Amino acid sequence: MLAVAVCMVLLAGLQAQDLQGHVSIILLGATGDLAKKYLWQGLFQLYLDEVGKGYSFSFHGAALTSTKQGQEFVAKVLQSLSCPEDVAPERCAELRGRFQQLSQYRRLRTSEDYMALSKDIEAQLQHEGLQEAGRIFYFSVPPFAYADIARSINSSCRPGPGAWLRVVLEKPFGHDRLSAQQLATELRSFFQEEEMYRVDHYLGKQAVAQILPFRDQNRKALDGLWNRHHVERVEIIMKETVDAEGRTGFYEEYGVIRDVLQNHLTEVLTLVAMELPYNVSSSEAVLRHKLQAFQALRGLHKGSAVLGQYQAYSGQVRREQQKPDSFHSLTPTFAGILVHMDNLRWEGVPFILMSGKALDERVGYVRILFRNQAYCAQTETRWVADQSQCLPRQIVFYIGHGELGSPAVLVSRNLFRPFLPSGSWKEVEDRPGLRLFGRPLSDFYAYSPVREQDAYSVLISHIFHGRKDSFITTENLLASWAFWTPLLDSLAHEAPRLYPGGAENGHLLDFEFTGTQLRFSRQQPEQLVPGPGSAPSPSDFQVLQSKYRDSLLISAWPEELIAKLADDIEATAMRAVRRFGEFHLALSGGSSPVPLFQQLATQHYGFPWAHTHLWLVDERCVPLRDPESNFQGLQVHLLQHVRVPYYNVHPMPVHLHQRLCAEEDQGAQMYASEISALVTNSSFDLVLLGMGTDGHTASLFPQSPAGLEGPQPVVLTRSPSKPHQRMSLSLPLINRARKVAILVMGRMKREITLLVSRVGHQPKKWPISGVLPSSGQLVWYMDYEAFLG
Amino acid sequence: MLAVAVCMVLLAGLQAQDLQGHVSIILLGATGDLAKKYLWQGLFQLYLDEVGKGYSFSFHGAALTSTKQGQEFVAKVLQSLSCPEDVAPERCAELRGRFQQLSQYRRLRTSEDYMALSKDIEAQLQHEGLQEAGRIFYFSVPPFAYADIARSINSSCRPGPGAWLRVVLEKPFGHDRLSAQQLATELRSFFQEEEMYRVDHYLGKQAVAQILPFRDQNRKALDGLWNRHHVERVEIIMKETVDAEGRTGFYEEYGVIRDVLQNHLTEVLTLVAMELPYNVSSSEAVLRHKLQAFQALRGLHKGSAVLGQYQAYSGQVRREQQKPDSFHSLTPTFAGILVHMDNLRWEGVPFILMSGKALDERVGYVRILFRNQAYCAQTETRWVADQSQCLPRQIVFYIGHGELGSPAVLVSRNLFRPFLPSGSWKEVEDRPGLRLFGRPLSDFYAYSPVREQDAYSVLISHIFHGRKDSFITTENLLASWAFWTPLLDSLAHEAPRLYPGGAENGHLLDFEFTGTQLRFSRQQPEQLVPGPGSAPSPSDFQVLQSKYRDSLLISAWPEELIAKLADDIEATAMRAVRRFGEFHLALSGGSSPVPLFQQLATQHYGFPWAHTHLWLVDERCVPLRDPESNFQGLQVHLLQHVRVPYYNVHPMPVHLHQRLCAEEDQGAQMYASEISALVTNSSFDLVLLGMGTDGHTASLFPQSPAGLEGPQPVVLTRSPSKPHQRMSLSLPLINRARKVAILVMGRMKREITLLVSRVGHQPKKWPISGVLPSSGQLVWYMDYEAFLG
Repeated sequence: MLAVAVCMVLLAGLQAQDLQGHVSIILLGATGDLAKKYLWQGLFQLYLDEVGKGYSFSFHGAALTSTKQGQEFVAKVLQSLSCPEDVAPERCAELRGRFQQLSQYRRLRTSEDYMALSKDIEAQLQHEGLQEAGRIFYFSVPPFAYADIARSINSSCRPGPGAWLRVVLEKPFGHDRLSAQQLATELRSFFQEEEMYRVDHYLGKQAVAQILPFRDQNRKALDGLWNRHHVERVEIIMKETVDAEGRTGFYEEYGVIRDVLQNHLTEVLTLVAMELPYNVSSSEAVLRHKLQAFQALRGLHKGSAVLGQYQAYSGQVRREQQKPDSFHSLTPTFAGILVHMDNLRWEGVPFILMSGKALDERVGYVRILFRNQAYCAQTETRWVADQSQCLPRQIVFYIGHGELGSPAVLVSRNLFRPFLPSGSWKEVEDRPGLRLFGRPLSDFYAYSPVREQDAYSVLISHIFHGRKDSFITTENLLASWAFWTPLLDSLAHEAPRLYPGGAENGHLLDFEFTGTQLRFSRQQPEQLVPGPGSAPSPSDFQVLQSKYRDSLLISAWPEELIAKLADDIEATAMRAVRRFGEFHLALSGGSSPVPLFQQLATQHYGFPWAHTHLWLVDERCVPLRDPESNFQGLQVHLLQHVRVPYYNVHPMPVHLHQRLCAEEDQGAQMYASEISALVTNSSFDLVLLGMGTDGHTASLFPQSPAGLEGPQPVVLTRSPSKPHQRMSLSLPLINRARKVAILVMGRMKREITLLVSRVGHQPKKWPISGVLPSSGQLVWYMDYEAFLG
Repeated sequence: MLAVAVCMVLLAGLQAQDLQGHVSIILLGATGDLAKKYLWQGLFQLYLDEVGKGYSFSFHGAALTSTKQGQEFVAKVLQSLSCPEDVAPERCAELRGRFQQLSQYRRLRTSEDYMALSKDIEAQLQHEGLQEAGRIFYFSVPPFAYADIARSINSSCRPGPGAWLRVVLEKPFGHDRLSAQQLATELRSFFQEEEMYRVDHYLGKQAVAQILPFRDQNRKALDGLWNRHHVERVEIIMKETVDAEGRTGFYEEYGVIRDVLQNHLTEVLTLVAMELPYNVSSSEAVLRHKLQAFQALRGLHKGSAVLGQYQAYSGQVRREQQKPDSFHSLTPTFAGILVHMDNLRWEGVPFILMSGKALDERVGYVRILFRNQAYCAQTETRWVADQSQCLPRQIVFYIGHGELGSPAVLVSRNLFRPFLPSGSWKEVEDRPGLRLFGRPLSDFYAYSPVREQDAYSVLISHIFHGRKDSFITTENLLASWAFWTPLLDSLAHEAPRLYPGGAENGHLLDFEFTGTQLRFSRQQPEQLVPGPGSAPSPSDFQVLQSKYRDSLLISAWPEELIAKLADDIEATAMRAVRRFGEFHLALSGGSSPVPLFQQLATQHYGFPWAHTHLWLVDERCVPLRDPESNFQGLQVHLLQHVRVPYYNVHPMPVHLHQRLCAEEDQGAQMYASEISALVTNSSFDLVLLGMGTDGHTASLFPQSPAGLEGPQPVVLTRSPSKPHQRMSLSLPLINRARKVAILVMGRMKREITLLVSRVGHQPKKWPISGVLPSSGQLVWYMDYEAFLG
């Protein structure tokens, strides 16, 4: 799909005393909306900032538009360029005139057009006796055009030796992890990583761009505060009043999470959360620390989000996309997301990300609210704003709009007086009556920019100065998609809550969290217009109770089954702790219990972990930290998320004297005596088992008689599959438990489930059939796939 | 010390149709202040409540006062008794007249007087043909008089068979755990536990008495809320405007903690915190649950409290107690205390107890503030009080006084509409302009008593009805003293912060907490009057570097020293992890490293714990979870706060095969081979040692040669102090380390520090002198007390 282009360059006004070289800036999509609204002005601002500082410039507007139309368009745009307030009108006119002389439109379509452009630039350089410093290509074009343009630039329009190439890319950068990866791979075949500047214009917003400098310049005050011990929550918010009308084609594909959260709000999150580099002006250090912040993000799950859609949206899509009347979109136009970070600094601190269209106000901010850990001995009416530690303490990077109407940095006066560079930030005058975040403006040290700058102007300057930390690296991009894609997948078929829009939303979109679970504060009201189609959702099905092998059987869809099992385990634990002061839980390895561990780790914050002893039902004879080790699974999916005292954790001693399961090391005997010493009557409160497709359970296999009977409570056994050597609790020990739960999940288990339902007590053939607690309870937990096939 | 007494009884107005029997109430100290102010009125109220319900009464005022004077006093008091508002004046006059007829004064001094009283009661019973129901003796006398009176009652004035005896005791009930125990033992020699009613008049305050019924009647709404997941904090507050003038004799002995916190506020705390019994009208169940709440209280330490004293106090004491001008009292008149509970319901929730004299207002309340776990999507001005989950959610038991002026129960409208019995509680009318706890009164469902009742009236009724749960049992009393006494002991010599009193206190008494540590929010200001001596503060001094035994010496005040050592350890760790991917740290036990562990756990967020291996330098031969175990110290102060992977933690195997440090279990050899397997060259990155006053280090003692030389890397040794058996790294192994840090703190170490500075290499005499890393670095960290003495 090669495009046609006509190329024309006019070069003028270059200064002969030029020292640092010449920079050519090619604006691709020069006749588009973004170019008209921001980019030409940004280029003019760059010129104003840099003129006379040693570089010479030429500005090439380019597009597919015909030369004449393009020239007319560009001429008109150039006429309307404005100078900052502090530039006198005559001076401004003069500068604008010179900028116009440096700026030209040309049509760029084919590879030959690019070659011609390159030739023209070279000719000009030679003619003027200039050294080339570099070329900037600003892609203000739709992503489908990227590849061809990139190929043309790479093959035909690279600058000469010693000069740099910078290509500037605009979002969207893919639709999910895979597509982003593909796009990135494609671009990498044309450009080096350091040549690419992916724009997230939020990083050019003045309040956002100030986050790191602020953290740096106020290190001393923030050092003790910027952590989980002092931060109560972080809110990262972008509210819009507009809706998606006229843009539903794009919006249907993306939705609010891809449009705003995956990029803008996530970038802001990393700036707040990252470990502050020693030198914040090192792009490399900033980018590295940012990437580390991504690595610390805890994975999101369906319960991490609430979704909404303004009521008029589906109608707009139907009209604009010619959809039938029966069409209802599931695309969210509102999302609240709860993010947690698994590192020492932020563990447990809720990061609340929220964005939506058709809300009651337009505003963007990052708000860090600190915990109130004070008691104020005087009556409240006597509290003084800059002294009382009981009044809210917060730091807000106010991105713009809202009640304040301009970007700002706000710091509660009872925190500290912040430093902001006085050349670029000035104190905001008080506006009596104005309240922000629960307090009058006068309760804050409030600063706004001396000169408000558009985000694109800021970013164009950063591109010119090679400040890569204001842009999205490939690693950063992929890390962000890796974080968001599982959530997007899990939400793909969720119906968002409908909301009327504007002030009428009332409290309908308020949401709240417990642990890592988010939900709307108010119950779903009656749908005001017909809502999205309602296929039966898993939770429409009850958890069923019946009998299997004469024992209680609980069956449900996987998610409900795991939730029910986790609830039952917690209830058993609470009972045991109340009665005996401790709870002895023996867990099986393998993949089935992983979602259970995750459920326990993230949803059961009331679980009495401090009084729980964790035992292994069986273990593979590998070192404890081997990925194959059952214990390693327990460590990764459960132990690292909860606080079980060290000595309550009882891995099986399969690795003694630097060897694995040697009979002479007596590991099985050691484990047995540990159990007998700590567990009353060697009777576990709960043993969690699985069932293999061959009817094995724990590591008790049909092929090997060890552990099926006899006096040894813990035995070494041999598995038909690798690693062969195992250690396992014996059937007699398992059957001493107060309660045994057997978890069976997945279609693969259907056959054995059917078979075992029919066999009697034949442990030598099907070890699972030997599980029969002598005085305890046995409960089967099966998902519908295992049970119904 | 027997007192003189005259006894006189007049009995009149008894009804012949009496069914349930006759009750004699003997008010001891009938001419005292408390009697005059509250108790006679309380008895009258009891009469009003119970008249015609089947009991007959006689009321015996008694004291040491002469008969004539006493009669006159009592007659005057009886004249002034008032009826509730809803009783018509004529009816009131009639009832008062009948009460006066039933009430008499008699002098009670000797045992014979009590015998005579008993005879008179018996004679009356016989004369009127009445069955005796019981006798109540109300001790409104100083505690020193208790024993004699108790003895006389027990020996001479018990009621006849089948009738009950109730003795009512007023605080103080001792001065600390020991004296309370002694007093209790003495009383137990005269009375059965069920005969004693110890009054804490706070339990008769209507709002306090409503706590349990409220929790019971609103179980459904509170069930999910009344726990650490939803409660942000609990404040239990009693503020007074009066000071101690005129009472300094008493106050000097007691101070605010004994006067208010140990009793009133602690009782309230247990009512809030206790597990709610199934049947709250069972005294036995309530008392049992209350006692369990005491058991869950985490012990207090010096850092749990802030103390203040109003500036005029010492002067008042000097005047009233004839003290010299140089006298300055250390008695606190203000205290803020941070209490935590170690149970599943309340773990981590701060309970803030505060009381003081000469404050800016008189008020008492219990405030339960719930966490804000919501985000409200609308701009704040649109939040509706009963819908927004972002506005404060709180439940307040308003004990009295303050802005509201009456007892009340307040529940935020965004929580739930509470149930209160409509017969006794009514909704409070809104008072525009009145704000309580940050919100207008209209934001609360607010209820106040239909009829305000004095606490003593409430309690006298409870005594009559045998409701023991409104009183302090011996167990309860001793549990409370057991909780408070260690704190009182630790604070005995602390200088309280001086405050001017009233509104002038400003923010001087505000306090805040981090973890379990409380401190005043503002730095100690210049003393306004000469305060307790002001030694130079630690931060006045720099951290010094010099040489000790030819090695680097770092000395500072304790806090700075610990901070510096923690910084150095982190830097060493970062270097090791960068170079080798892991950091091997061997730590000593004992008390010195505890503040270091705390510093590392709470201040060093960037510490590479995930890559750190923790080893023990030495261990006591006790089970790992024994409080004496070095590992247990590590677990409590460090491990439970940071995330070290399970298999990176290496406790010494002192407890194998259910026995301690048996040679044949080869624990030392096992540890040595674990080290050799995991630590390159068995060369730790950092070994942290201490130094004993006898020159020992690790568990290498002068008396035992083991471990000082030879091939064994880990050895069993014998300590001169208990527990004698130890396991320890050997000197040769220690000296293989890349770095060794020796931490020496406290005045006690001064002598050995001086001595060791002069000795050469004599490890057999002073093992510490044998620490000399063969190729690593040795650094001494000494605080000024150890170094300068």
